[in-house]
Order: sequence, then C-alpha cells, then structure tokens
Amino acid sequence: MSDSHPRRRAALRTSLRDAGLDALLVVDLLNVRYLTGFTGSNGALLVHADGDEHSVFCTDGRYLRQSAVQVPELERVIERASALALAARAAKDGLRRVGYESQHVTVDGLDALADAAGSVELTRAPNLVERLRLVKDDTEIEALRMACAAADRALANLIEHGGLRPGRTEREVARELESRMLDHGATGRAFESIVAAGANSAIPHHRPTDAVLAAGDFVKLDFGALVDGYHSDMTRTVVLGEPADWQCEIYDLVAAAQAAGRAALRPGAAVRDVDAAARDVIERAGRGAEFTHGLGHGVGLEIHEAPSLAKTGEGTLSAGMAVTVEPGVYLSGRGGVRIEDTLVVRDDGPELLTLTTKQLMVV
Amino acid sequence: MSDSHPRRRAALRTSLRDAGLDALLVVDLLNVRYLTGFTGSNGALLVHADGDEHSVFCTDGRYLRQSAVQVPELERVIERASALALAARAAKDGLRRVGYESQHVTVDGLDALADAAGSVELTRAPNLVERLRLVKDDTEIEALRMACAAADRALANLIEHGGLRPGRTEREVARELESRMLDHGATGRAFESIVAAGANSAIPHHRPTDAVLAAGDFVKLDFGALVDGYHSDMTRTVVLGEPADWQCEIYDLVAAAQAAGRAALRPGAAVRDVDAAARDVIERAGRGAEFTHGLGHGVGLEIHEAPSLAKTGEGTLSAGMAVTVEPGVYLSGRGGVRIEDTLVVRDDGPELLTLTTKQLMVV
Repeated sequence: MSDSHPRRRAALRTSLRDAGLDALLVVDLLNVRYLTGFTGSNGALLVHADGDEHSVFCTDGRYLRQSAVQVPELERVIERASALALAARAAKDGLRRVGYESQHVTVDGLDALADAAGSVELTRAPNLVERLRLVKDDTEIEALRMACAAADRALANLIEHGGLRPGRTEREVARELESRMLDHGATGRAFESIVAAGANSAIPHHRPTDAVLAAGDFVKLDFGALVDGYHSDMTRTVVLGEPADWQCEIYDLVAAAQAAGRAALRPGAAVRDVDAAARDVIERAGRGAEFTHGLGHGVGLEIHEAPSLAKTGEGTLSAGMAVTVEPGVYLSGRGGVRIEDTLVVRDDGPELLTLTTKQLMVV
Repeated sequence: MSDSHPRRRAALRTSLRDAGLDALLVVDLLNVRYLTGFTGSNGALLVHADGDEHSVFCTDGRYLRQSAVQVPELERVIERASALALAARAAKDGLRRVGYESQHVTVDGLDALADAAGSVELTRAPNLVERLRLVKDDTEIEALRMACAAADRALANLIEHGGLRPGRTEREVARELESRMLDHGATGRAFESIVAAGANSAIPHHRPTDAVLAAGDFVKLDFGALVDGYHSDMTRTVVLGEPADWQCEIYDLVAAAQAAGRAALRPGAAVRDVDAAARDVIERAGRGAEFTHGLGHGVGLEIHEAPSLAKTGEGTLSAGMAVTVEPGVYLSGRGGVRIEDTLVVRDDGPELLTLTTKQLMVV
C-alpha cells in the first residue's frame, strides 16, 4: 500500500490547519518514518499545511541513495544538521507560524532551532503525529500481524524441537527463540526477550540468566518480533512436566483475568475500565496485591506507546488501536504467570494477532 | 572494580561545586548507568554536591530488586515518574540551585520538572556527565576490550568455518557473525551489522540484503559487540578469491591512510589534525572525493559519542579516550574499502583493541 505515507501526511495537514500552523517540523525519527517510510538514523521533515508539493525532507549524505528510493515523492535536502536545515528553510520560504514537537525537542535543541529559524514563530505542537499513530491503518496492522506470526511460529518450533526442557539455561532458550523469529521473517527482536524459570518467573521483568530450567518449573516467555519497524508482544507461561495445584490455580486465574480484559476491548471503552475488568477478577480472588503492573499498552512503531491500559490511564479506545492485554500474578520466591496477547480493537470485537494457545501448555 | 561508580560521582561533585550547583538531576539513562551501574529502563539520579550520603536514586516498582542489587550504596526511592519525584525531593530537601541536563530534557519535560521543583531554581547544566565519560576508566576500557575481543573472535571463526564464500547472502553472513559474537561473550550486537558485497561495498552504510556473494567481490564487514553496555566497532574488507589490481590499489591506499590516522592519535592532538593526517593520504592519491565521511568517533556506552574525529570536529585528544579510526574509499558501482579499528589514546602511543589483521585477507 504505497499510498499510506501521503495519506498520513494529508491527515496531519488537517491537524495543522486546525491548529493554525503553516507547517510542522517533525524531528522524531519514528514520526518521520511514519510519515515518509524513511528508515535511516538521521532525518527531519517539514510538513506544510497547504500541500505535499511544499513539504521538504532532509537527511545527510550517507542516505542520499536510500532517501531517493524511500522518499521519492518529496523534495529532498541533504544536510547533516537536518532539523536546523529545515528550520532555516522555513524562514527562507517565508513561513510565519511553525509547530515543533515540544515533547521531543530538547531545551538546548530549541535554542538552536530558534537561531536557525530567524523570524519564524516556533510554536509548541506536541503529539500531533502520535495522535494519528494511535489508530493503525491497514499497512500497519499487516506489519503487526506478520510480527505476531513470526513470534507464534518461533515458539511453536521451539517447543516442537524440544527447546524447552530441564537442563537448558534461560539464556539458551531466549537465544533460540530469537533466532527462530529471524527464521520466520523478523528483522530483529522487538525487545530483550524475557525467559524466566522457576522462582525467577515471579519477577515481572526478569532478564535471562544462566539459571537452569528444572522439572516442575513455570517458564515465563515474554518476547516479540520486529517486522517493518512494527513490534509484536506476547507472553506465555508453560510448565515443565505435571503442574502442581497452586500452578493450575494461578494459571487459571490469570487466564480468566486476561479473557475478561480482552472482552472489555471495545471502541468507546475507557482504558481504565479495561484495566479494571481484568484486575477485578484477580482482586476478587484475593490476589490483587500480586498483580503489580498495568494491564497493557499500545504497540506499533514503539514497543510501548499510547494508550496505556492502566489504573491511571486516560482516554477511551477507538477501532484500529493495537494494544496488549497482559495481566500477571507473581508469588515471590515461588513463581508467577503472565499471559499476554497483542490485539486490534475492532467494532465487532477485538482481533487477536498472537495466535498461540492460552491453554496451559505442559511441555 | 566496584568502586568505579562512587569515584565517578565524586568527580561529578567537583564539577557541580565548580558550577555553583547544589545538585545535578541526571535523567539520561546512560548517564545514570555510568554513575550508578543501574541497567533498567526507568531511572533518575539526584547527585548532591556535598556528598553521596545525600544523593538519591529513583526507579519504578519493576526494578525494586534489581536496583537494590545494582545501587545498594545510595538512598532509593520507588516512583514511576522518576525525574519528577527527584525534582520534588530537591524542593523538599531545601536545595536552591539544581542543574538539569538541558541537552536531554525536552521542552515539555522542563515544564513538568519546574512544576515539581517548586521554588528550586532549575539551571541548565549540559554535558557535565558526558564530559567525564570522554576519558574512560579502567573498568570501561576492560569492557571495551572484551567487546572488541568478541568481534575479533567472531570474524576469525566465521572465516575459519568457511562462512565467507560465494553463494551466501549478505544477510546470512551478518546473522552468523552476530551469532558468533554471542558465542564469545557479547550480550548483543553494538549496532546493525553491515555486510556489503561487490558493488554494495561502495555504499558506506549499506544494510545487509539477499544479495549473493560472488567470486572476486570485495566484502565489507562493519560490526561490533556489546559487553556490559560498551560497544566495539570494527570494519574489515576482504576479497573473495584473487584480488584485481584496482582492488589492491584502493585497499593499500585505505590501509596507509588508516595507519596515518592511528599514528596521529596522541594526547593533545587536535581532532581535526587526526582527521587530516588520514585524509591527506587519500587526497594526495587523488581520491579525496571518494572518502565521504569523517575519520572516526568516540565509542563507549554509545556507539557514536564524543569526540568526533572529523574536518569540523572540535577539541583535542586526551589519554584514555576511546575512538575509532575508519577511513574509506568508495568507487560507486564497483566497490569500496573501509578499514576501522577501535583504539584507546595513550601517552606512549595508541592501544589497539581490535586485533584482527589489516593485511588484505583473501578468502
């Protein structure tokens, strides 16, 4: 869908006109990528309110060829100080009121921009692009779907080939999982994979160690793949051998909470209510104190982005938002369970992108 | 060397007293890591000018246990909005003049800090920690040495096992190289590896593709390992089979320029003169236009950090700085050569950390 970038810029122009801005200076690289498809490490974009033919993209000489391929439809300027070059360009083009991303531009950076922009009035314009990014378009959802599929397949292959067995270390499992995601089309991992065995599974954000998997252990795997810049995020918790009663108990509890959270994903729902839907299940079981984090988060070009599905989260859901639902219960010193999916909010009920079973897997 | 963090904080306190600050609010995670050893994804530090016993570290509940292990010697506060919590703490402690990292704090972020800090005077204090980070201590150099060794060993193993041969794709080679770095103690790759075959080797920052290596090709490999948060950076260019005359010519030229650049690494040398020492060799051969980037850069907790060894670079070298020296000559459509080492500036001549041969390897 090669028309997605012009369409996103057109939507941004509407925001600019609403805000009374002649243009927006976009310096955040993810926002630049979202609006242009450019994937290099230095780039900025000046989006004019009145049309793409006036918008200008800037990067440095390393990306001369790459930018010609990725951003053929915009005027391109080659300059190392890309944001400053575009601020100067705004002045040269006689723009009066230019927004900048005050949530990304640093205090020192603003001074430099103001110097370069001369008489142009630089105005705070935070989160204009992030607001568009909240609702994913079809191109984005397809990338998320592929990223989730790579993670699903990697886990299935890992288990099929006996990769989860007593005697292996957390680190070995994490590495194999990541390698298998690459086999299935990922360009990288979405974040440092969590593989947490036994008592370590009670640590929400455990980093893989040389701890050895043992029979009877919970093994919590929280991992994701990167495809076209989009992140997947999935957690499954399995048991090595026959589960004990306490393991079944907390697994079933977390699974019920996760199902309640998924069921609450509806356009118009307040994000706090979604969190509450899952949290209530755990609190009613007397385990509220052991669910120590928020229910989920938006996912896209960033692994954690808006909206935040948490007690203190603000706003409501819309169709097309991509979010995680990931309750957990952690029994310190014994073990913990987290179950997490990535889903898209839809009018007719959420679309599940991570398809691995949520039945307790006994491997 | 467990005393390195207190020593770094003591050095920072000297800078604070020189700047007339009661404290510095450190929000950049790399700076926080440098000063404390904390490796989590949310943390801030308030360094008091008058002593470690008044300094406060803040992170969120996910890192309760990790921070107790990594930062046992400082008072710890657990709060999600870590920077704001410490700004409020500065007010509560009656501090008057607190510096903030104006090169990292965003325009919107400063508003929030000022709200939290009440009557405390927040003052710009850019780059105080970065200035300390310019000169590496023994702990840091040991991490760099291990990162460079992992890269050296990975390349040696790759070649030994026939990993560089006609028929393989750039992507396969990159993946094997990265996997072998993990075998040799790396916790990850320092950056997305560059493997560029044939005409692609003329693109300075080529990303690995499915292009197939062919006999007679230059293969340029630019890669590095991550150890304890420190990055190595090395480039070697090899030939598959017998080199042609033009290949020997540009290889020898780049090798001579690289040797000249290394020889110019002396405490007190202006960084521009180091760049010029290598560039002159290439310009005298009439190939100045084909060396399209700077000579090198500092390397440490970031893959690119100060100083910049470039035509427009500023300042001079000091003993203990870790830098790369990486000239290149790129013949568009034919092929290119870059040779890069990571080195430490020493009084008695630079210490080479990347030990792979710089003889033209014919594989």
